Amino acid sequence: MHPPHPTPHALAPHVLHYPLADRCLHEGRATVSLRLPRALQPVCVYVRSEPNNEELLSKLEPVGAHGPWERWSGPLRLNPADPVTRYAFKVVLESAQLWVSEAGVTPHAPERDLHFRWNPRYVPARWVWSAVFYQIFPDRFCDGDPSNNVSSGAYRYEGKPVVAKTWDERPVRGQGAREFYGGDLQGITAKLPYLQDLGVTALYLNPIFTSPSSHKYDTVDYLQVDPHLGGNDAFASLCAALRARGMRVVLDAVVNHTSERHPWFDRYGEALEPGAYGHPEAPTRGFYTFVKDGAEGGEDVLEAEGVVRSDDPYHGWLGVATLPVLNFAHPEVQRRVYSDQNALLRVWLRPPYRIDGWRFDVAHMIGEGPGARNNARYLRAFRRAVREENPEAYVLGEHFFEATPWLQGDQEDGAMNYYGFTAPLRAFLTGRDHRAHPVRVDAADLGAMLARARAKLPFEHQLSQLNLLSSHDIPRLQTELGGDTALHRLAATALLTYIGVPCLYYGDEVGLEGSHDPDNRRPFPWDAAWDERLRAHYRRLIALRRGSRALQEGGFAELYARGDVYAFARILGEELVVVVLNRGPQTRVALPLDALGRPATRLRSLFDGAEVAVEGVLEVTLAARASAVFCG
Amino acid sequence: MHPPHPTPHALAPHVLHYPLADRCLHEGRATVSLRLPRALQPVCVYVRSEPNNEELLSKLEPVGAHGPWERWSGPLRLNPADPVTRYAFKVVLESAQLWVSEAGVTPHAPERDLHFRWNPRYVPARWVWSAVFYQIFPDRFCDGDPSNNVSSGAYRYEGKPVVAKTWDERPVRGQGAREFYGGDLQGITAKLPYLQDLGVTALYLNPIFTSPSSHKYDTVDYLQVDPHLGGNDAFASLCAALRARGMRVVLDAVVNHTSERHPWFDRYGEALEPGAYGHPEAPTRGFYTFVKDGAEGGEDVLEAEGVVRSDDPYHGWLGVATLPVLNFAHPEVQRRVYSDQNALLRVWLRPPYRIDGWRFDVAHMIGEGPGARNNARYLRAFRRAVREENPEAYVLGEHFFEATPWLQGDQEDGAMNYYGFTAPLRAFLTGRDHRAHPVRVDAADLGAMLARARAKLPFEHQLSQLNLLSSHDIPRLQTELGGDTALHRLAATALLTYIGVPCLYYGDEVGLEGSHDPDNRRPFPWDAAWDERLRAHYRRLIALRRGSRALQEGGFAELYARGDVYAFARILGEELVVVVLNRGPQTRVALPLDALGRPATRLRSLFDGAEVAVEGVLEVTLAARASAVFCG
Repeated sequence: MHPPHPTPHALAPHVLHYPLADRCLHEGRATVSLRLPRALQPVCVYVRSEPNNEELLSKLEPVGAHGPWERWSGPLRLNPADPVTRYAFKVVLESAQLWVSEAGVTPHAPERDLHFRWNPRYVPARWVWSAVFYQIFPDRFCDGDPSNNVSSGAYRYEGKPVVAKTWDERPVRGQGAREFYGGDLQGITAKLPYLQDLGVTALYLNPIFTSPSSHKYDTVDYLQVDPHLGGNDAFASLCAALRARGMRVVLDAVVNHTSERHPWFDRYGEALEPGAYGHPEAPTRGFYTFVKDGAEGGEDVLEAEGVVRSDDPYHGWLGVATLPVLNFAHPEVQRRVYSDQNALLRVWLRPPYRIDGWRFDVAHMIGEGPGARNNARYLRAFRRAVREENPEAYVLGEHFFEATPWLQGDQEDGAMNYYGFTAPLRAFLTGRDHRAHPVRVDAADLGAMLARARAKLPFEHQLSQLNLLSSHDIPRLQTELGGDTALHRLAATALLTYIGVPCLYYGDEVGLEGSHDPDNRRPFPWDAAWDERLRAHYRRLIALRRGSRALQEGGFAELYARGDVYAFARILGEELVVVVLNRGPQTRVALPLDALGRPATRLRSLFDGAEVAVEGVLEVTLAARASAVFCG
Repeated sequence: MHPPHPTPHALAPHVLHYPLADRCLHEGRATVSLRLPRALQPVCVYVRSEPNNEELLSKLEPVGAHGPWERWSGPLRLNPADPVTRYAFKVVLESAQLWVSEAGVTPHAPERDLHFRWNPRYVPARWVWSAVFYQIFPDRFCDGDPSNNVSSGAYRYEGKPVVAKTWDERPVRGQGAREFYGGDLQGITAKLPYLQDLGVTALYLNPIFTSPSSHKYDTVDYLQVDPHLGGNDAFASLCAALRARGMRVVLDAVVNHTSERHPWFDRYGEALEPGAYGHPEAPTRGFYTFVKDGAEGGEDVLEAEGVVRSDDPYHGWLGVATLPVLNFAHPEVQRRVYSDQNALLRVWLRPPYRIDGWRFDVAHMIGEGPGARNNARYLRAFRRAVREENPEAYVLGEHFFEATPWLQGDQEDGAMNYYGFTAPLRAFLTGRDHRAHPVRVDAADLGAMLARARAKLPFEHQLSQLNLLSSHDIPRLQTELGGDTALHRLAATALLTYIGVPCLYYGDEVGLEGSHDPDNRRPFPWDAAWDERLRAHYRRLIALRRGSRALQEGGFAELYARGDVYAFARILGEELVVVVLNRGPQTRVALPLDALGRPATRLRSLFDGAEVAVEGVLEVTLAARASAVFCG
């Protein structure tokens, strides 16, 4: 039944070596184990590491058989000088060799970047593995208290009056930041029953601190929740309500830049004391980078990063005037952001709020002066500060592209997984990339894109990635799909079953449409018609996920990746979930479950409840543009 | 002729984008260009970089056509906070996109590790690109002065008397380090006409500094050439003779550890002043790591690294007693090795020696205390010191495995390319890996192994890698091939034509046999029969390489990689070299030269002188276990 030289697809890595269960550290000594088909009859099995940057092969011994599998176990030498140890298994056969790594099973040594990674000092935010997140753009979800709403013309933003919109109006391109719908934290509190009915267990809120814009990515006071969102009291109430329901909340930390109106900067001279802008002598002058002060690395660098032309030119985020960039080289910036006992990242982790984590906006761009110099130093410091306050806080980074360096145990737990989930899946379903350029991605490409993103992350980080289909920064999936709700349901199946933590963007579950910013930030359609079939689909999958440890923290194995069909398994101990995604016309595929060590098994189909008896291979007939899920 | 959507194999990256010619930096502004088939008719061409860790697409414009190619050019934004800028080209077509990177041409964005890399601050040792190296183990090459030979029993090494051997005896396993044949620097000087006749232009010498062993990897005096090799005067003479012939020399820097008999350590109390061993108060005590002094990172770390059990246990390289490891955390070690004006790495770069570079033994293991802590800091410091003395010195690292981190412009120019050349080629030809385990590597695997090693290196580093077929650390290729000189000639073709700097191990060119250390260090068989056909083959290929800028610094393009046949092109401007390697029976392959922009061309076959007219595709008939080279 098991061929002597399995191909990479016939044996999946996490099925053979499942890090959460198959490695342990006890009194400084690490042990790993590996399950191999008994029929392989290896001459020798080793685990390879480079403890002093030099190859060391440590021998594993057989420690017991279980069905068609034999378990091999032995010591692993960790790296003393590198927090991350990379290891892979070498299986020497009579006339060939096999390696087991994140690259799967390969006939020769995989490159080092594809070895398994283990950072034994890393403490994951385990609670996120069983969480289902829901992202809310607070001004657009629910207006719980109309008395705190922004009034039209109450002040000016970017030189023009702010506008109060009615709930059924559309945001207008080019003025989204000064349009206000009245959504607030009281509204979120009021809708917790709706969210809990959907199955959501945690919220990720776009910024809530005081800011003149509706997106609030330009903070003027990091210690005050915006009064138009209900202020600190409303947030404390929301936190209490969440806690009462066993729910969690993660906030948006926007510390790469402030508002130009933050008193530290004070571009318009509105503050009581002189701010940095126009005042070279101001105590906060060094919080920012001004052309007149001479930029480290030369003016060219500053120029390239984005200079805001004015009487006192300065570094704005990508040159945006409203977003002067903080200079973390300044010790007082470090103190106020993270190192002081009452630093802004710390206080919200304490009562009465006790938030459960931070999502760091443009995490990779944070640094010293113009450019992201010493970025890692600050992300590490953020993590230390946050974890001192709450040892299981979730440290989430915003990264639109590959985030590997931030996800090795010393900085973030997870990234907004555009790179490893959203972009590949959307390209597969829409034929467009994030810039709307045409792109050809079939199931094999999809599999390769997903695999390469997983491969460089320690397994705990793979489980902690925040997967999403839509967000406030990209067009909603529903719109990108041209309203094809069948494909949307398929994508929802992927979201709730793929490795990582699922996060729904408010309104996606009822089919809310929305193109580019600000159209993707429309108010939640409480009074409009919902796509109830879509919502039921999300609800059913959320329930499945919440009841399945295999989906929350199980291993991942690709089963099929060709043409229009992508299939994978999630597996944990005796629990197995098989997921099949078909973007094309009706078709039939055969999935080799015997390679998972399941030669004979019974599975239940989630959507039609049918029981299937599997003898080695699961034969699946898929409707057009549909998904199937089998549990056993 | 050019399909609208070329496959990765149909368009090769360096043909499209050849970094040495296609990028430049002028007054801080970088420009790149790319050649594309005119028939592609792109909608838009971009170069992508992440100057502030965020994606930036900069537009390229067409700047002129040449035959079937159109040249696109435009600005590239460099990274201010990262010395290495990674970039790739995005070509948007009507209904698809293409990317050009080190991964070749791909239908969607390649992962960041496979983007082109550019470290504009990096200054290559350009002379190595046109060099042909010859590695000599000095005790075994030629005895130029018998009066300086070690006599049997003159002293003891590892507790046993040293042995003087006659030139035709074999080294004996287990006692190689205390066997001496009498080879010396005078002998090398005497044989320079032989080497120059072969075509060699540079020497890499195994260690020559004073040491009680024949391998001399345990130094007792870094400032004195071993008297048995001729001392400093003989070395000065050799350097002068080399210079007179326009030849160069690179020495072995063994600074990870010293001899246990080095006066700094002085295990046997032979020195005038107390050494570190057994003297906790000695000024050099902190040069090494002793268990009694308490090891940083705990005793477990020291244990794992290798403790030498004795009255005063210490850290020996991999636990070897004769090789106490230097602790670079000690400022005086830093001063003596590299930072003082008369540091040991500096003095040999000055007159009368003026060596042309250093090969750093176990470069990746050098560091602080037990383990390779802060390794990169010291390799950077070595580079700075060496380049201060000689701005074009070659900084070469010994790395048995992947050396990517050391080859990004701030540390080494090249590595001994076991990972990216020797191991893949030997696995392809012998079916065994470096541990003699069976391994299955066909031409496709070979191509993938070679490509993945190149892909993560800036192009200048690809050109500067030191390629080798044999060395003092692995069995000779001739022996690994079971004496199959046909396959040896094939490997020699690869060595002299593949991207990187070729280095012959003394005696390989005449078919010298040798298994594991010390058998691979047999004396050069001056008086025995030589394989003259093999030597003529090396000679012819060396001559070809020395006359070909395409082989020295041209781009690389894989042309064919299937079954037993691997073929590639080297290309520079109008010059083209096509190389075909066939490890199997006689066969015929078709190579698509039109994809290189050579729809019609004339080539000359190196080995039989035949002229071939090519119309798009080069049809080659290959003898069994043979190579072919075509030049045009």
